[in-house]
Amino acid sequence: MIVLRPIGVVRSAEANPPRHWSISEVEGELDIQSRYREALTDIQAGERIVVLFAFHKSPRFGRRHLRQVPPTRNEPRGVFSTCSPLRPNPLGLTVVEVLSVQGARLRVRGLDMLDGTPILDIKPYKD
Amino acid sequence: MIVLRPIGVVRSAEANPPRHWSISEVEGELDIQSRYREALTDIQAGERIVVLFAFHKSPRFGRRHLRQVPPTRNEPRGVFSTCSPLRPNPLGLTVVEVLSVQGARLRVRGLDMLDGTPILDIKPYKD
Repeated sequence: MIVLRPIGVVRSAEANPPRHWSISEVEGELDIQSRYREALTDIQAGERIVVLFAFHKSPRFGRRHLRQVPPTRNEPRGVFSTCSPLRPNPLGLTVVEVLSVQGARLRVRGLDMLDGTPILDIKPYKD
Repeated sequence: MIVLRPIGVVRSAEANPPRHWSISEVEGELDIQSRYREALTDIQAGERIVVLFAFHKSPRFGRRHLRQVPPTRNEPRGVFSTCSPLRPNPLGLTVVEVLSVQGARLRVRGLDMLDGTPILDIKPYKD
């Protein structure tokens, strides 16, 4: 069992974000807890970053969700070949562009998460 | 608090894997629990997949780890700009190439994880 604690939360005014970051122009904020501010030191405007987050609204995963029909297809796919929010571990991955950094708040473009989504990690897009 | 359960485990004979998947040619297996076999249905040889995993050997994260000196640099960087295994939530991300699929075992190339690493999720590299 692995226990995680959010490092921050997504702030977004978009009620219906696109289903995937690669087609998203939605802007909003990654509101990171102030105790992690120093960990954000080297993140700069113009950079792309990977954001790992929790699908906090997903119902409990069950056997009937092993294969699902993605919105862009007509037939079921194994869930590990989809980006469905309903997966064995409710982990999401998004790549966003950093627009600005103010303290522990990152203004970003490319959100596909809901407002209030718990953020778990930030990684460089390329190392 | 978000509680995750491994979906499988990394099998690898390489005791000293490279520090990043982008420079790894290490082959091994993703040994996924048989109850998730159906969720692997559409993963095929030749494909690249994203693997999310737990850094299960990392010590507890503390304030002194907010900035760390990466092995490839001479100065400290904010941990969210590094791929250090020592991070607020011990989540790792690797992209591997699928060599073959046998039941719920995926033979892959490009591992940077240790043998026994708990696997948390598999996602398509491009959706």
